[in-house]
Amino acid sequence: MAKKDKDWKAEAKALRGRVKKLRTRLREKAGMGGTEKKAKAPNPVSPLAPKGGFPALPVIAGVDFAAVEAGVRYANRKDVMLVRLAPGTAIAGAFTRSSTRAACVLDCQAKLKGKVDDTSGAAILVNSGNANAFTGAAGQTSVDQVTGAVADALGVPATRVFSSSTGVIGEPLPHDRIIAKIGELTAALDPGGIEMAARAIMTTDTFPKGAMAEVEGDGGTIRIAGIAKGSGMIAPDMATMLVYIFTDAKIAAPALQKLLSRNVDETFNAITVDSDTSTSDALILAATGQSKAAPITDLRSATARAFDAGLRAVMMDLAHQVIRDGEGATKFVEIRVTGAADAADARRVAMSIANSPLVKTAIAGQDPNWGRIVAAVGKSGAKADRDRLTIRFGDILVAEKGWRSPDYREEDGASYMKQEDLVIAVDLGIGKGARTVWTCDLTHRYIDINADYRS
Amino acid sequence: MAKKDKDWKAEAKALRGRVKKLRTRLREKAGMGGTEKKAKAPNPVSPLAPKGGFPALPVIAGVDFAAVEAGVRYANRKDVMLVRLAPGTAIAGAFTRSSTRAACVLDCQAKLKGKVDDTSGAAILVNSGNANAFTGAAGQTSVDQVTGAVADALGVPATRVFSSSTGVIGEPLPHDRIIAKIGELTAALDPGGIEMAARAIMTTDTFPKGAMAEVEGDGGTIRIAGIAKGSGMIAPDMATMLVYIFTDAKIAAPALQKLLSRNVDETFNAITVDSDTSTSDALILAATGQSKAAPITDLRSATARAFDAGLRAVMMDLAHQVIRDGEGATKFVEIRVTGAADAADARRVAMSIANSPLVKTAIAGQDPNWGRIVAAVGKSGAKADRDRLTIRFGDILVAEKGWRSPDYREEDGASYMKQEDLVIAVDLGIGKGARTVWTCDLTHRYIDINADYRS
Repeated sequence: MAKKDKDWKAEAKALRGRVKKLRTRLREKAGMGGTEKKAKAPNPVSPLAPKGGFPALPVIAGVDFAAVEAGVRYANRKDVMLVRLAPGTAIAGAFTRSSTRAACVLDCQAKLKGKVDDTSGAAILVNSGNANAFTGAAGQTSVDQVTGAVADALGVPATRVFSSSTGVIGEPLPHDRIIAKIGELTAALDPGGIEMAARAIMTTDTFPKGAMAEVEGDGGTIRIAGIAKGSGMIAPDMATMLVYIFTDAKIAAPALQKLLSRNVDETFNAITVDSDTSTSDALILAATGQSKAAPITDLRSATARAFDAGLRAVMMDLAHQVIRDGEGATKFVEIRVTGAADAADARRVAMSIANSPLVKTAIAGQDPNWGRIVAAVGKSGAKADRDRLTIRFGDILVAEKGWRSPDYREEDGASYMKQEDLVIAVDLGIGKGARTVWTCDLTHRYIDINADYRS
Repeated sequence: MAKKDKDWKAEAKALRGRVKKLRTRLREKAGMGGTEKKAKAPNPVSPLAPKGGFPALPVIAGVDFAAVEAGVRYANRKDVMLVRLAPGTAIAGAFTRSSTRAACVLDCQAKLKGKVDDTSGAAILVNSGNANAFTGAAGQTSVDQVTGAVADALGVPATRVFSSSTGVIGEPLPHDRIIAKIGELTAALDPGGIEMAARAIMTTDTFPKGAMAEVEGDGGTIRIAGIAKGSGMIAPDMATMLVYIFTDAKIAAPALQKLLSRNVDETFNAITVDSDTSTSDALILAATGQSKAAPITDLRSATARAFDAGLRAVMMDLAHQVIRDGEGATKFVEIRVTGAADAADARRVAMSIANSPLVKTAIAGQDPNWGRIVAAVGKSGAKADRDRLTIRFGDILVAEKGWRSPDYREEDGASYMKQEDLVIAVDLGIGKGARTVWTCDLTHRYIDINADYRS
């Protein structure tokens, strides 16, 4: 027998309410973790991305950029970028210390070690989609082919052509697809193309990363502009860190290398998303010498110090952007360690906290769980004395003298942890060793991104 | 205007279908990750738990167990357990190397170091719910109070009463609640109470852990029975590892300690859930000497070797059970490293793989992502040569000679990864160093459990 009008109406109403409830619960769940399917959809931009979008970067005289769609792995996006560097450009580099480094990294290191003729032009070629890592002898062949083709096209020595590859590991690099596009790339070279280049090297990154500085030199301005990619501290198949910084400073390669090396430790070597080190990390710094400012010859000069500070600021900015785009990150966390026996101990403690899954999940849960910080200090292997330990969340004194501070209120800690940017400060009360590192939280989304089957 | 009968009926039908769909999706999601609320509900038993439930453990002559509800933190469950050990029991121990060790750990270590009168009785008292860690000088006071009260009640020297605490950090231990129950505990002492004791020390554990061995000695059987708790390798406030093993072997404390120490490295020190080391890890081994078998005096004797093997089997079994109850675990993973330059390098590589969030999330996703294993080898700091590396999943040869094996088919790897128990074997092809460690995968549930606000 058919139901009455009223009954159907009532049931439909009840069901509508039920649908609404279920959808709300589904939305809540999606916000918490997301599904495998969602992880495959284009990643939403990180909530920690710089608010203003990609910054306006100055043109660096002597540097041109181009990017093309070569279909290395991805379709319908630019995946190869070329940088042409004018004759006289000095080049410095810093690379992963992994013992299973990719062929292109080994190649860059060999080229930077050799005696280099700085007077010729140079180039950097980068592809995303394939890391050319763990590809046996074929890996070096691919690097030789690609850098040789760029050298021929630009009329520069192959020893001055540097390459990076980021993407899937263990697959031969389809270098023919890249070589086929070199004509198109050289035709498109443009001094204003740096943002396009920053986009072409992205993999799981959710925003392109750029930073700049301008320094008053002796007789003119020195400009620095850099780009980076990176999202997991590493997985060889998705998120290795690549950084390219350009400047018009007049400075010889050995001095440039010295400045780079001394700044890398406290910038790019002081960040961690997941403690996993890449097979492919590479940072290349190129100085074209085309600024009107006088050459930097004495590293103790005022100009050298200003340039050093500018370079450091650009490196720090890019390093922080990598953390702000950390896989699944919802919190940007500064870990400040002071009072350690020495600098090495301070770094050990800072990294032990920054890499602790228990600390990182507590941060994701907005839990002021200082007990886990105590445990991370304890496991670090650094010299520590429970009774001299002080822990602060921002300005809030949480624990001191081996116990929770008498003035600490859990509500204050809980309220602090709701912020997007956090500072966790630990003083060991032993010596003068200090170190600051940066990390992000460990969320469901990190697992969605990384537990997802490669597709 | 009212809708027609038919319209309402159609809408109700459509809505019913929608409700069904939404509920299915919700169920799927719950299976994948679970919600914060679900994490607060009693943890479902780990899918990796031993199938037969708690094993039948032999009674160890000279050992009695009792457990009571003291309300240290949890209500309506036994949370304090007492073990009485007969006069003449030899005791050995192994403890966390954390520099922020809990007061009870420091106390056990001090008592085991001192010159001990083995002829007297002894006791072990353990509470869950409060770790008595990072509690300043009050921590030692609590330990003194509790162990003193047990010593008085049982008529044994306080230097022979060992205690452990596991639970929240930084809160003073409410030792009065424990002391108030010591009469009840001593009255309930029972040689058959070991399972109850195993349950009383659980925190986030999803099943109680027990293991046994029987060894034929000279003139009689030697029995070994052990219990453990542990679920996260550590968080001081939830899942530190505690292990108690009992035997009726006649063996002096120094020899017992020697056997314990040489077995701990390849059992409990070879497991990791999340790389986080506890402030509270403790393993106590007690030998009552009440077996009819002849005393073990020469560690090279056949009986000593059999006892050593039995002890090792019990320790290994309990260690594996801790991994099988790893927070959020769905896979039990053996990492076998061979061919390293030395044993230390082999351990470095094995732990680097076992602790890599990228390897662990890939395993959770059933992804045969050997590229991440290459990266974990590379970052370990151990001597490695890309072109000598061999990787196997079970019997499947995945990669060799610096590249993916020509015979490897991704379908085979993917099918292997669906198993619950996995073996990942890495040969470095350099030397004779070998090491096996055990770990579990990193899942949404780990984050649910650990990102949840302490309640």
